[in-house]
Amino acid sequence: MFPYKTSILLDRSLKESLYLQLANQFIVLIKDGKLPPNTKLLGSRTLASLLFIHRKTVVACYEELDLQGWVISVPKKGTFVHANIPILKRRDFDKDNTPYNNVSSGFHFYSNDCLIRKPISSNSNFMFLNDGICDVSLAPIQEITRIYRQIASKKSTLPHLSYGSTYGNLILRDVLVNYLNKTRGLHISIDNIIITRGSQMGIFLASHLLLKKDDIVLIGDTNYISANVSFEFQNANLIHIPVDNDGLVTDEIEALCKFKKIKAVFVTSHHHHPTTVTLSANRRIHLLNLAKTYNFAIIEDDYDYDFNYNHAPILPLASHDTNGNVIYIGSFCKTVAPAFRIGYLIASKDFIDSAANLRRIIDRQGDALLELTFANFIKYGGLDRHIKKVLKIYKARRDLFCNLLTNGLSDFFSFQIPNGGMAIWVTLSNKYSWHSVANTALKYSLDIGDWQRYDSANTKHNSIRMGFANYSIDEIHLLIDRLISTMNEVSLIPDFRKF
Amino acid sequence: MFPYKTSILLDRSLKESLYLQLANQFIVLIKDGKLPPNTKLLGSRTLASLLFIHRKTVVACYEELDLQGWVISVPKKGTFVHANIPILKRRDFDKDNTPYNNVSSGFHFYSNDCLIRKPISSNSNFMFLNDGICDVSLAPIQEITRIYRQIASKKSTLPHLSYGSTYGNLILRDVLVNYLNKTRGLHISIDNIIITRGSQMGIFLASHLLLKKDDIVLIGDTNYISANVSFEFQNANLIHIPVDNDGLVTDEIEALCKFKKIKAVFVTSHHHHPTTVTLSANRRIHLLNLAKTYNFAIIEDDYDYDFNYNHAPILPLASHDTNGNVIYIGSFCKTVAPAFRIGYLIASKDFIDSAANLRRIIDRQGDALLELTFANFIKYGGLDRHIKKVLKIYKARRDLFCNLLTNGLSDFFSFQIPNGGMAIWVTLSNKYSWHSVANTALKYSLDIGDWQRYDSANTKHNSIRMGFANYSIDEIHLLIDRLISTMNEVSLIPDFRKF
Repeated sequence: MFPYKTSILLDRSLKESLYLQLANQFIVLIKDGKLPPNTKLLGSRTLASLLFIHRKTVVACYEELDLQGWVISVPKKGTFVHANIPILKRRDFDKDNTPYNNVSSGFHFYSNDCLIRKPISSNSNFMFLNDGICDVSLAPIQEITRIYRQIASKKSTLPHLSYGSTYGNLILRDVLVNYLNKTRGLHISIDNIIITRGSQMGIFLASHLLLKKDDIVLIGDTNYISANVSFEFQNANLIHIPVDNDGLVTDEIEALCKFKKIKAVFVTSHHHHPTTVTLSANRRIHLLNLAKTYNFAIIEDDYDYDFNYNHAPILPLASHDTNGNVIYIGSFCKTVAPAFRIGYLIASKDFIDSAANLRRIIDRQGDALLELTFANFIKYGGLDRHIKKVLKIYKARRDLFCNLLTNGLSDFFSFQIPNGGMAIWVTLSNKYSWHSVANTALKYSLDIGDWQRYDSANTKHNSIRMGFANYSIDEIHLLIDRLISTMNEVSLIPDFRKF
Repeated sequence: MFPYKTSILLDRSLKESLYLQLANQFIVLIKDGKLPPNTKLLGSRTLASLLFIHRKTVVACYEELDLQGWVISVPKKGTFVHANIPILKRRDFDKDNTPYNNVSSGFHFYSNDCLIRKPISSNSNFMFLNDGICDVSLAPIQEITRIYRQIASKKSTLPHLSYGSTYGNLILRDVLVNYLNKTRGLHISIDNIIITRGSQMGIFLASHLLLKKDDIVLIGDTNYISANVSFEFQNANLIHIPVDNDGLVTDEIEALCKFKKIKAVFVTSHHHHPTTVTLSANRRIHLLNLAKTYNFAIIEDDYDYDFNYNHAPILPLASHDTNGNVIYIGSFCKTVAPAFRIGYLIASKDFIDSAANLRRIIDRQGDALLELTFANFIKYGGLDRHIKKVLKIYKARRDLFCNLLTNGLSDFFSFQIPNGGMAIWVTLSNKYSWHSVANTALKYSLDIGDWQRYDSANTKHNSIRMGFANYSIDEIHLLIDRLISTMNEVSLIPDFRKF
């Protein structure tokens, strides 16, 4: 007889009912071939007394196994393992039964190795340079969650909890149309907007609709790395355009247009990412005119429109677009907090319709409750109040950061004070390399971050972005102190990589 | 002199400051060529008196225009429009200045026309058949939003508001590993899970990593339409496999494997979508063994694991997978409410790593606050309580729906009572066509929905899914009454499409 008593272990302390525990253990025995096809199982009375359980438990277990198709109950004859259950084949190295056996796949797939650099240390004493992120401790989280709960408790919210539009919630789209027309000088209607999860989804949707293999997209010779990754993902042909103090050199774009079919130009016109320069007025008009003449799309990622310290924000290219050439992308991830995944993509109606269809495939729809929350937050001035508040704080941090950099580190670094945004474009003296700076900084609990990524076009500009917005005043002092210690040590040792 | 007085309109009732209103109107005049390059602007005193504004307003405006690069201020000479500002080219038909001018794009793109059928009527008196959706009025929304706000008010939540892991929140991953190991008999560790937005994103991630152009994926000859759309999006080769009362016919899969390289098999093993049949025990093992032998992936979409009315749920294929062949996809969109976009994808570690990299490109990361909320909701039994509650209600609705169908419509419809899920697979008598039923139903304020999509393989099964779970008892009575009226009328008219 099969050793039921030693093969089956029931635990009354578990939440799972006894009959299910029993059934699941039978299933393992059957699929492993320990109870082969056609095996007659013990009678319910006999098994019950063997395992010290009630007979009804065994009956329920056998019924369950029958329903699931593992056994067949033949009236007056008994219960039998189903005639044609194959034995489950196991990996040989799994014989010793490691608990987590799925480290590698049993099939081939197209692995995806886009660059995600993990921080070097998770030591809480470490400080991390970043390329310009907001300070989430300033986020109006209490106000937002209060609105969230208010909205959730309204009866009128109920229909929004079911499947919704792939364009995003209609109420938020309506609020955003008004808000963006007023603040950005756009001239859009509700047909021109789709709500996204953030800028990244906007860039993904635009890339996918614009670019197939070998299609040409123009980017700056310094450029926002996440956009590059998106374009490479489409197997597009990325061509680098020089960037100077007035932003993308549009004459170079015109020269290219004359002998190549350009599908799209990616631009962060307000503050070029990463160098923070602003695209000059004449180049803006030049670029728009080129787009009209050569029928290409301008993907305008206006990632920090809200953060200007010296003057009013410059209206985006999209505000001058009368020819349907500009795809305008923005989000609240930098303005409020990255965790609130709400952004938007603005374009001509035909493009928005296609984007909504595409969005259905990748994640179906957005989060209606959060979208309604943001509609309310924007409509009743919460967003404007928040921007006004943090603008002052970030400006003070920029000023302090720049002052300390100038006072303590001008032998090593040069930079221009950015008139907006959350980061400074810092150029290291040619005597030194970021490689040695990054290595030395680790000794002083400072992680310089992924400095290589800023020069993907290999122009040897020797610069990186240093975010300042997310640090408190004390943290800025501490960070600059660590940078000073680092640079003092770096300057004592000849840099072999440079000579 | 340029007619400043009639060209510039300032409105003191607007929130936008006067100097910005003035600057933005100058920008329009400059880019339209009405103030051509090198034009000398009026002195600040003269313009101020002309427009009845303070001189400081004009000075601030000119400074703004200078900073933005539209004009140049030459000391002691005045302010001039920048020498090389091109005139913005406009579309000819925009000369009459339509407010919303972006209906069609000024560039070519690859339009995406996946099928999104819009409901025929938005009349609130209309009832809509669906393919099985949950009743959001039962969703524990107060409990969830209470947890949401609690979490948001904790100091420990702050770091979660910044950029987070593309794998999803670690705390939710940990809770789900325990929950799924306990409820689904899985044997996974935290390395085997990525949090998604819902099942659709899981299917998208899996499709993209598994399938390139012409790669073979096997699907049922009836199949979940959203999965088909995802596979077609990758330009994969979709091959239909027969589905009978025991689910996918695995012998047919084995026959195919012998002469073709199969990349993946899509299966909704628990209740086949759309027919609701359960994959039998021997076919489960057979399919797993085939996957091991022929190294293909099984994409298991366990969309309604939680809803079983007759017996305990059947453990998913993933619980028997020891070879890393199964990619297991689930979500809480059907269990709680579609608006809460939380799902998961379970697979071997190497596959999860690639999925996390891919996810970074499409929408970067999930919503940390909502993910933490669900971690809490699941960990402290909220989800289990909710499932227990709705299970009883849905079972009663299924029973009523099936009884009324049998009593009033058995001349027209045949079906098997599903032992789980939220829908019934209803076959229309061959004497009639869904085409005429759908047309007639409109007269009785009933929208049959997109009946064509259920037979994408053209097997002429003449069946559709009828969801029952989202209707109240009264609504079920009303819906069946309308169906009866519809069928009584349909049966009076010969169906020309059939003869």
